Amino acid sequence: MIKVGIVGGTGYTGAELLRLLAVHPYADVVTITSRSEAGVPVSQLYPNLRGAVDLSFAQPDIAALASCDVVFFATPHGVAQSTVPEILATGTKVIDLSADFRIRDIPLWEQWYGQTHAAPELVSQAVYGLPEMNRTAIAAADLVACAGCYPTSVQLGFMPLLQAGCVDVTDLIANSASGVSGAGRQANVANLLSEASDSFKAYAASGHRHLPEIEQGLTDMAGKPVGLTFVPHLLPINRGIHTTLYGNLTDPSVDVQSLFEQCYADEPFVDVLPAGSHPETRTVRGSNYCRIAVHRPENSSKVIVLVVEDNLTKGASGQAIQCMNLMFSMPEDAGLSAPGIVP
Amino acid sequence: MIKVGIVGGTGYTGAELLRLLAVHPYADVVTITSRSEAGVPVSQLYPNLRGAVDLSFAQPDIAALASCDVVFFATPHGVAQSTVPEILATGTKVIDLSADFRIRDIPLWEQWYGQTHAAPELVSQAVYGLPEMNRTAIAAADLVACAGCYPTSVQLGFMPLLQAGCVDVTDLIANSASGVSGAGRQANVANLLSEASDSFKAYAASGHRHLPEIEQGLTDMAGKPVGLTFVPHLLPINRGIHTTLYGNLTDPSVDVQSLFEQCYADEPFVDVLPAGSHPETRTVRGSNYCRIAVHRPENSSKVIVLVVEDNLTKGASGQAIQCMNLMFSMPEDAGLSAPGIVP
Amino acid sequence: MIKVGIVGGTGYTGAELLRLLAVHPYADVVTITSRSEAGVPVSQLYPNLRGAVDLSFAQPDIAALASCDVVFFATPHGVAQSTVPEILATGTKVIDLSADFRIRDIPLWEQWYGQTHAAPELVSQAVYGLPEMNRTAIAAADLVACAGCYPTSVQLGFMPLLQAGCVDVTDLIANSASGVSGAGRQANVANLLSEASDSFKAYAASGHRHLPEIEQGLTDMAGKPVGLTFVPHLLPINRGIHTTLYGNLTDPSVDVQSLFEQCYADEPFVDVLPAGSHPETRTVRGSNYCRIAVHRPENSSKVIVLVVEDNLTKGASGQAIQCMNLMFSMPEDAGLSAPGIVP
Amino acid sequence: MIKVGIVGGTGYTGAELLRLLAVHPYADVVTITSRSEAGVPVSQLYPNLRGAVDLSFAQPDIAALASCDVVFFATPHGVAQSTVPEILATGTKVIDLSADFRIRDIPLWEQWYGQTHAAPELVSQAVYGLPEMNRTAIAAADLVACAGCYPTSVQLGFMPLLQAGCVDVTDLIANSASGVSGAGRQANVANLLSEASDSFKAYAASGHRHLPEIEQGLTDMAGKPVGLTFVPHLLPINRGIHTTLYGNLTDPSVDVQSLFEQCYADEPFVDVLPAGSHPETRTVRGSNYCRIAVHRPENSSKVIVLVVEDNLTKGASGQAIQCMNLMFSMPEDAGLSAPGIVP
Repeated sequence: MIKVGIVGGTGYTGAELLRLLAVHPYADVVTITSRSEAGVPVSQLYPNLRGAVDLSFAQPDIAALASCDVVFFATPHGVAQSTVPEILATGTKVIDLSADFRIRDIPLWEQWYGQTHAAPELVSQAVYGLPEMNRTAIAAADLVACAGCYPTSVQLGFMPLLQAGCVDVTDLIANSASGVSGAGRQANVANLLSEASDSFKAYAASGHRHLPEIEQGLTDMAGKPVGLTFVPHLLPINRGIHTTLYGNLTDPSVDVQSLFEQCYADEPFVDVLPAGSHPETRTVRGSNYCRIAVHRPENSSKVIVLVVEDNLTKGASGQAIQCMNLMFSMPEDAGLSAPGIVP
Repeated sequence: MIKVGIVGGTGYTGAELLRLLAVHPYADVVTITSRSEAGVPVSQLYPNLRGAVDLSFAQPDIAALASCDVVFFATPHGVAQSTVPEILATGTKVIDLSADFRIRDIPLWEQWYGQTHAAPELVSQAVYGLPEMNRTAIAAADLVACAGCYPTSVQLGFMPLLQAGCVDVTDLIANSASGVSGAGRQANVANLLSEASDSFKAYAASGHRHLPEIEQGLTDMAGKPVGLTFVPHLLPINRGIHTTLYGNLTDPSVDVQSLFEQCYADEPFVDVLPAGSHPETRTVRGSNYCRIAVHRPENSSKVIVLVVEDNLTKGASGQAIQCMNLMFSMPEDAGLSAPGIVP
Repeated sequence: MIKVGIVGGTGYTGAELLRLLAVHPYADVVTITSRSEAGVPVSQLYPNLRGAVDLSFAQPDIAALASCDVVFFATPHGVAQSTVPEILATGTKVIDLSADFRIRDIPLWEQWYGQTHAAPELVSQAVYGLPEMNRTAIAAADLVACAGCYPTSVQLGFMPLLQAGCVDVTDLIANSASGVSGAGRQANVANLLSEASDSFKAYAASGHRHLPEIEQGLTDMAGKPVGLTFVPHLLPINRGIHTTLYGNLTDPSVDVQSLFEQCYADEPFVDVLPAGSHPETRTVRGSNYCRIAVHRPENSSKVIVLVVEDNLTKGASGQAIQCMNLMFSMPEDAGLSAPGIVP
Repeated sequence: MIKVGIVGGTGYTGAELLRLLAVHPYADVVTITSRSEAGVPVSQLYPNLRGAVDLSFAQPDIAALASCDVVFFATPHGVAQSTVPEILATGTKVIDLSADFRIRDIPLWEQWYGQTHAAPELVSQAVYGLPEMNRTAIAAADLVACAGCYPTSVQLGFMPLLQAGCVDVTDLIANSASGVSGAGRQANVANLLSEASDSFKAYAASGHRHLPEIEQGLTDMAGKPVGLTFVPHLLPINRGIHTTLYGNLTDPSVDVQSLFEQCYADEPFVDVLPAGSHPETRTVRGSNYCRIAVHRPENSSKVIVLVVEDNLTKGASGQAIQCMNLMFSMPEDAGLSAPGIVP
């Protein structure tokens, strides 16, 4: 069993790490920190974890974290970058679920996140935590910057097309929709049930923080700069991201169904559905799977890719554990094989 | 007061006609038909109408319908076309909420709807019921074919751009999402709460029946054939359509905000939001308003249009009443001015 | 047209007053106050009211309020009591939607609300705003203390039984469930969609602030002290209260269906359903109706009463307008006759 | 590994058995039957099980079922009774999730279920599958009649009080609310999202089929006949039952919190919350836990018990697996220890 620490455990990604690690066969959570809730039993904040997690939230303590084999940061952006250097220096590995180490272009990060980066020297050594793209590098990494929730769905949906070079990279569109848990557990009028339920809206249509992260990933896949239009929407559901991708095939004769099936044939958590399918977010509820379907409208060179994932699992904590499994040479699906909960 | 008949009143658009007409100052519903529920009080099926609607469902009867000033057809496609000729012959006006008379190209209609059209001679005299496009013709019409729910949102969202000729008509994308009431009141496993709630999916991604209707309308607006990609999605909400449109501006210098504001300045039911806004479906819940916002992502020639409407109101029964008001020279907003219900 | 002022218009009951008064034939809202949002157009906070309400929130101003015929207080408890005396002194009538003037026993009020009452002298002259109980007194009142949301449902459900004296008053049970809008528009983690949706719970099972208000009303009806057990629950819906009442009939031979039908025969907003019915909250969504059904389980002296209302309408703003209509000799249902929105 | 068969696998309890057994360490599902879907891969109906369940639905076949160690019946009432005798005769154990063998009084069963019982001789040898009540008998049983969803919550909530003899057994009230999945996966207008969402109602207030089952269990616990009033309600959620119980303490000095804690101290799946708590259904979503809180309103002899469970897990398939674990001397929580999914 490896020893796991979690920094910032009161949010939904922290709670999801706890839920998943509670049944992980090779990992034990030994400390979980929260400045605001120090001393409070985890199960008081998350009664679903009663009987499964006996820890109380602790004040952040470098020594305690350094005694772990790996520390997850489930903190808002800007927090990990100030503490990670010290932890890495002790030899403990770090998996950051925030945006702190995802973007290699530091001025670009600073522009979108409105602050000076506190550990720019670490950015280049961080490995981007999307196993389907970076499996080998993740396995060897000390610092993993987990892919974001929207970025995971967009990148997995475009990857086969970009790697095959059969789509016009200058005009990619990602129309995404996320459950409200993506906004975190902050008190916020806009995310009250009375505000967000029985309704639907786009937001940040003119530009969203995940845009530069996605563009960086797609550019890596394509080997050249891409042009992406990204519009996120807010779904009146708890969990789940659905992304609808639009691209123009440069070679309309390509068999996109085969392309996707071959690309992901060996992936444990990417499931390409049969031709004609439409994935539903509920099929991945609480699970680490990403389900994808590809469509070709008649009389058109358009390709439409439909992608679903659970934003808290494959879009965050499940993916972080998948990275952990790789970093510690465990079976990649250890603790992650439970099916989605339907209905 | 004019006398109104409704054919096929057990579905949601029939019930919505009743709800709206119950407070209409100039119209009285005098008969409502349903073969399956004949004899049953309307308020038994729709207890929300107790005290507001005293009618019982009646067997369809041409004489009773002919005694009305106007008859609404709130029936599945294929029904209106077999009865409308007889009713029109008596001098009674008809407003059809189904798809029967929307598409001028009869073989195209027959291809998408899988049946022979029973009254093709009426199609050319039917006026397409989208007041923002056809106000004058509707006012003079005897037979109105009300615009569909998705088509209303897509056409109102693209109209200013197409009429101004500032968008590439060969590559239009409509990413739409509808509440479940759009699927009607039929028993159907896929629309059970346990199947559709807390989830989201696309459907008919390779082609949907509303595509030819929308293409016809956009072509009329553009004055030349358009290329449209249309992907509908199912929202886990009762009412509401949200459409996200993507186009490429041929003239990126155009002020799209002004364009939309001017186009809809005099429209009673199209509300262009201030720049930077994101309309929510709940703001039009139960109302006849359509709210629109326009966005321009940075460093891009893309234009993004966000459109919301209530699929049962502006997308169906409200629009039908708006047409009726025009046809009988009543104030266009008579009975339709109630704001959306929030929260 | 009478002139209406609203104090504290940013919450849901303020917004509901605006929505309902926007289509009221005899009342105009001329001022609406909010300290926190002064200067902001109402329609910016509530885009559903765009086109219907042109006012901006104003700083509270006694002169402006005094120029109104009636002022509604849609404020948290404790606010109205400090301003109402001054307004009443100018001859303007007041309808308070908060709990400030509902409880005649001032020490009891102070105990449950944890503060000293600022205008105890007004409490005895306030008329409790439940028209079905106090119609005549309301019509003559200068100050109305509107009944609370839960209390309205419990009192209307028990009233026929208590007035007929056929139920054991020492053992009354009210099991209520409310939509989340009952908690208001405050940022609060517990009411986030991610916390409250797809879930259900009781709260305040050991004692809730509405208990003394309900007991006072039931005692008035019974003519003797009652013993009430009241457990509220939180429903994952926007609007709606459903109350299930349990009582023991002292005379099991009574025809409870007739009793209820006769009691409410002339009430414009209380609808007794046919025997065997089960009212749904959605049938009163957005409307001022209260629907009631009565059941008698076999082999038992129990009577079960099922009551539904919209907590923001009959449970708050609709009832307040019903009181206003009575106070100004308007038709009691003026502006309140719209049916509930289904689906 | 034991070999498991499932009869009637297309419904929600069948799918839930598959989901849970997919990660069970000691059991393999080897056959699953469905007349209507024979030949269809399970994962086509339940895409969440793609990658976890490779079976296709098979025609019911006694030989195939007899080769299993245990067969679960996840069928509508009336089905198991005609096949179970044949299977038991082969030495294979049976766990029935339907109501067929729950009620010992056969005429009573026949009255509530409107049919003649086909295997009355088996009823007396069936063990009622509520482990907290019948653990030893279940371990020795060949035929287990799993407790129903509502009955589990009501019985677990009243058991400590009845066994201690401190509550008036002649006046017990159970006010329950269930998610829509309790109604199964049948096409049914009343359970459409557009009918059941954003709403709440009671049903069967005058008498529900679970009443005799609950009364039998409570009578066993009390050692004398009980009087129960039971009113079920329909929640607009997928999963979850919340039951609010009301009783009158015959000995108001009893410490009910301690009573409950002691009664369930050794139970793996019954979790008594700290005094003052209110359990939420979401905390048991997808898990086999039942969470209970007890309240005593002031100045009253009432005791209020709040119980939550997942109707498909502890209320059906999880409980069935818990019984299986007992019957095959496996750890009682094998395959059932995953925490509830929050949010």
